[in-house]
Amino acid sequence: MSVLLKPVLYSYFRSSCSWRVRIALALKGIEYDLVPVNLIKDGGQQLGSDYRKVNPMQQVPALTIDGLKLSQSLAIIQYLDETRPTPRLLPQDPKKRAQVRMISDHIVSGIQPLQNLAVLKQVGEEKMVSWAQHYITRGFQALEQLLQDTAGKYCVEDEVSMADLCLVPQVYNAERFKVDLTPYPTITRINQALLELEAFKQAHPSRQPDTPPEMRA
Amino acid sequence: MSVLLKPVLYSYFRSSCSWRVRIALALKGIEYDLVPVNLIKDGGQQLGSDYRKVNPMQQVPALTIDGLKLSQSLAIIQYLDETRPTPRLLPQDPKKRAQVRMISDHIVSGIQPLQNLAVLKQVGEEKMVSWAQHYITRGFQALEQLLQDTAGKYCVEDEVSMADLCLVPQVYNAERFKVDLTPYPTITRINQALLELEAFKQAHPSRQPDTPPEMRA
Repeated sequence: MSVLLKPVLYSYFRSSCSWRVRIALALKGIEYDLVPVNLIKDGGQQLGSDYRKVNPMQQVPALTIDGLKLSQSLAIIQYLDETRPTPRLLPQDPKKRAQVRMISDHIVSGIQPLQNLAVLKQVGEEKMVSWAQHYITRGFQALEQLLQDTAGKYCVEDEVSMADLCLVPQVYNAERFKVDLTPYPTITRINQALLELEAFKQAHPSRQPDTPPEMRA
Repeated sequence: MSVLLKPVLYSYFRSSCSWRVRIALALKGIEYDLVPVNLIKDGGQQLGSDYRKVNPMQQVPALTIDGLKLSQSLAIIQYLDETRPTPRLLPQDPKKRAQVRMISDHIVSGIQPLQNLAVLKQVGEEKMVSWAQHYITRGFQALEQLLQDTAGKYCVEDEVSMADLCLVPQVYNAERFKVDLTPYPTITRINQALLELEAFKQAHPSRQPDTPPEMRA
């Protein structure tokens, strides 16, 4: 029975979308097998015909679980939350759930797709960094504003939520592209608080099975 | 009491993200006031300081409802579905819900952000069309594949869902950018079935208060 098999996560250590799902799995204590998909090696292992059967979009992450083949990080996280509800990643109050989804989508649709590896290749070596900085900056200006209405200790009040799973990997990307974070004190404060949590540490790119030795923490 | 006020939708007739929310409102029979935000006129009315207070990301749609100020189409649609559940836009079965969200996110994060107006401006006049075609084609190849596992009459079996609200506006964009749709018979068939439904007709860009006379149906 496929439901008795351990879930399998297809992941790349530095992929921010994979990282979101790794945090969810860690927070919920779900055991899984990890299949590394190297986005650089062999011209991109996600482009091979084997992986295409797992995720036709040829992106990570993908998760096989309960006989399902899922891609898209937020769809995966919400499935995990609906079927393995402890600890919950969306609040009970519909208004707060809406805020969690708004912030998550803001990052997942509004920022990340415009600075991912495949798009930056398309943009070209020369403009790559300024392009990524432009979209992250624009997104963070708005995010800092949104958080004024929603944040407590974390993105939406004091409970860790799906929004926080999106925030931390996006801040890591901002740092990679040397975006100045001083104008975003709320983003920075929440990111630091989250990085203290064990699940966020476990899921970090510096501690994955496919992390290259020189990048290990 | 703010909860007694009619919801206000900030929308642009041709914005595919606004259109998704208009379909949800129409399907659920929710009355609302519409504030048109012209993305072209005055250098883009979404960039003005007034609208920035509604949505700091300076994009449409936004919805004020029940005392909340929401942006991001899927966050809005899911809030509507959780608070006004008839007819439901996410199935009851968690596995099917996951498939609806996967297809929705595939379009909303994987395709639309890469071919929206602001990004195409950044890409430049010369490359604009080929850029948009590239990302829509890549997304539709994967989507056609995903639908083989999920589709019935609509994207996920035979009930209209959030995924369908994302599909129709994305096909419209594909047509605007003259993407050849013949390789995508499932996408095309579902799109046609959906366009027959009254809510999809009402929400169409050709029938909005801000539709210019020459584009009215």
